[in-house]
Order: sequence, then C-alpha cells, then structure tokens
Amino acid sequence: MLDIILDHKTIRKYKSTLIDKQLLNKILDCGIRASNTGNMQTYSIIISTQKEIKEKLWEAHFKQNMVLQAPVILTFCADFNRFNKWCLQRKALPGYDNFLSFFNAAIDALLVSQNITLAAESYNLGVCYLGTTTYNADKIVEILGLPKGVVPVTTLVVGYPDENPGLTDRLPVDAVIHNEIYKDYSNEDIDKFYYEKENSDLTEELLKTNNKETLAQIFTDNRYKKSDNVLFSRKFLDTITKQGFMNNAN
Amino acid sequence: MLDIILDHKTIRKYKSTLIDKQLLNKILDCGIRASNTGNMQTYSIIISTQKEIKEKLWEAHFKQNMVLQAPVILTFCADFNRFNKWCLQRKALPGYDNFLSFFNAAIDALLVSQNITLAAESYNLGVCYLGTTTYNADKIVEILGLPKGVVPVTTLVVGYPDENPGLTDRLPVDAVIHNEIYKDYSNEDIDKFYYEKENSDLTEELLKTNNKETLAQIFTDNRYKKSDNVLFSRKFLDTITKQGFMNNAN
Repeated sequence: MLDIILDHKTIRKYKSTLIDKQLLNKILDCGIRASNTGNMQTYSIIISTQKEIKEKLWEAHFKQNMVLQAPVILTFCADFNRFNKWCLQRKALPGYDNFLSFFNAAIDALLVSQNITLAAESYNLGVCYLGTTTYNADKIVEILGLPKGVVPVTTLVVGYPDENPGLTDRLPVDAVIHNEIYKDYSNEDIDKFYYEKENSDLTEELLKTNNKETLAQIFTDNRYKKSDNVLFSRKFLDTITKQGFMNNAN
Repeated sequence: MLDIILDHKTIRKYKSTLIDKQLLNKILDCGIRASNTGNMQTYSIIISTQKEIKEKLWEAHFKQNMVLQAPVILTFCADFNRFNKWCLQRKALPGYDNFLSFFNAAIDALLVSQNITLAAESYNLGVCYLGTTTYNADKIVEILGLPKGVVPVTTLVVGYPDENPGLTDRLPVDAVIHNEIYKDYSNEDIDKFYYEKENSDLTEELLKTNNKETLAQIFTDNRYKKSDNVLFSRKFLDTITKQGFMNNAN
C-alpha cells in the first residue's frame, strides 16, 4: 500500500494494450469505497473508450496525446442529478442547486479519483490526471452529454505504461505543513524550501530552453498565466452556473 | 493496498493514544506524493494537537466529539500564499487570485488528503473526514490564522480507533458509472439503484426515528436542508473572496 503511494508517477506514454473489463470493474469498486458527503455519493464516473469520443475529449484537453493513446478515459463529475431525481421521486424537495452542494460533490468525486489512481497502480496500470478538465468543462459537458446537476471536475487517463519515469521532485515536507496554526513564510523560508528545486538539473535546462531568469517566471509567464487563469475562471464559473449550482438565494 | 481501500471505514470513536511523531511524518510523506497541478504543490496541511486549538476547531465543526477525542486534526488547505511569495521573491508576477487557481489548489489538497487517509489506515490508524470544513471555513481561517491565498477545504481527524464499525453501504457501482457518455436515469433506474439502500434495516430504523415517509426526506428535511446549504454557500463564497480568489477580471 505505502509502496504504491510512494512510487506514484504520472504516466504520459501508454501501450495500446486494452484494460480487461473485469479488472476495470475491480478498480471502480475501489473508487466507491472512498468517504463521501453524508453517503449521498454525489458523483459520477464516465468511462470513455471509443475512438470518436476520445478524439473529442482530446480536443477539449488541449490535444494531449495520451488521451488518444491510453485505452480508458475516466471523467469524474460532481453529480447531484441522480440524487435530485431520487428525491423528487420520493416526495422530497432537493435543495442542492447551490455552490456548497457543488463543492461537496466535487470533494466526493476527487476522493474517488485518488482511490482509483492507487487501485489502478496496484494492478500495474499507469494514470495521468488531466487538470485541463476545469479549463474546458463546458466542452466536456457537451461531449459527454452531462445534464443539469453534473459538472466534470477531473479526468484520469488509464492504461499500461510505455515509459518508466523517475519520481517527480517535491518540496521538503516541512514546506507544506504547519504545526498547530499557520506560520507564514519568511523570505528565508522561501529560499530554503525552494533551494533544491531551483538548483536541479531540470531547472537549469528549463531556464535555458525558456530563456528565463527564474523558474518562477516559467510558471507565471508560460505555464500558468494570469490571462489564461482569468479566462478559464470565468468559463468554469459559467459552467457551474449553467449546470445549476449557483442558486445561492433563499 | 486494495484491502486498505476496500476496508475503509469512517471512525468516530478514538482512543487517547497519541500518534508517534515519526509515524505521522511517514504518513505526511505519503501525502505529498499525490499528483498535483503543475507540481506547484499549492496546498498546506495544518497539524493541530493542542487542547485549546482543538477546542476552537471543535466549535467550528459543530461540536463533533471526535475533534476533541482524536489526538491529531489535519486541516487541508488550498494554498497559493507560499507560491505567490516565491514568485514575488523571484521577479515573477503571480496571477493566481482567481477562482480557477483556487479550484485547482483545492483539487491538490483533496488528493493529498486521500493519500494520507490510506497511509494512516495502513498503519492501523482511523480517520474521519469533516465535511463541516466548508460550512465554517471563515471560522477555521480565523482559528488557524490563515493568510490571504489560503482556504481550508477539508479536515481529517486521525487517531487509533476505539470502535470497529461495519462497512457503510454503497449504491451498486452501476449507479455511478456511465459508459462512453452520460446516460440519464429513468424512474426505473432510480428505483433499482436505491432499492437496497431503501430496504435496509438501517433505513427502517431511520424512518421510525425521524418519523418520515421516505429516506430521501431525511436528507432534504433534516440532514442537508436547502436553507443551510444556501446560507453556507454564501459564507463559503465570501471566504473564498476574502482570501483573495475571486478576482476574475483582467
């Protein structure tokens, strides 16, 4: 168990080998054991394997090759649609068209996704999370035909690895923990915690390739730009609203 | 690994046994191996063990006893504060004061929390997720002294179990999966998927105790009421805004 967690690596190259249906079911069974809000299980998982659907998803995920390469794409959604339908069919009036309900459902879906990640890896499969899900949630809603009450929050591509990358670097654990209450970072703390990352061979290479003075600039100017973040913030909030989760009035 | 996932149970009664510091560190090391957005690690974990802080958190979590009983409370936060400070110290202009950045950071924090859950359980510890984190995020911000750029998204209480409950029921896995695209639920689907849950001894007991006609009504009228959801939606959105994540304009 701990080995699986500690050896986790994102896989970006996949073999064409298909995933046995029974194996996939075992992995999905692991997913639904995750804790969830009030045992309402307000999430859904869309399993896409067909070429034409994967091609559309590939477009929505900014044409990342692994979406075509990996045999299975799992889209994890916050889903109150099923629960709402159940309520209405049982003389109960659901009040889940608001932001808190969306966020709790998103938490549910995300915990399920991490269980599925670790279960898949324990069967020698590899996965990659697609953060692009929140960027183009509107397109994914269209492609997968998601009704009101359903918003995609993350995606996993799953398949047999065709590469064996090393572990990704992490900040020292002390950088992300705080004892008792939050202790804000001094300039010295920042220097210390980012030292190893900033002085790695990978960083040296990135600075040359991107012609930047600091690693931080590669994030702010290239990878995670304000203009993109702002654009996709609005789009994502629009999608949450259109899918019926922003009625925060009595 | 799979056993740990499949045997997951929420623990609500804890022994007073403390958690060894080294053991806790091993568990935290497992947490940070989770995938995260762009390897920015935009999360923080606050470890609270002191009586006076736990008492305040207990209040914020609607006085759930296990917050006092369990030796360790882990509050998982979406955290761009550290990353922003790093950027500013490295001649880079961060653009992460928007909703997308908050949501991506929340995803990071939640995946870490599930790794920590499974790592803790593999060391015979028990955990309980506190969904109340999003309800009283404003109070938790105050108690833990969270600066701008930091929002709590979930909490785990962690300790040695003083109970051994059975597995919680789940809907059949078919209820939460969709093949290729979303297939909306017919009335018959709803009846079928909720049959077992609705006809359990637990449900029979709940209906009697709560004097309700259907299980769904216990959710809509008692446990997850619209008036609460709306109130806490606004409060949570206010907290996200105050913590500096709603500047979605260019």
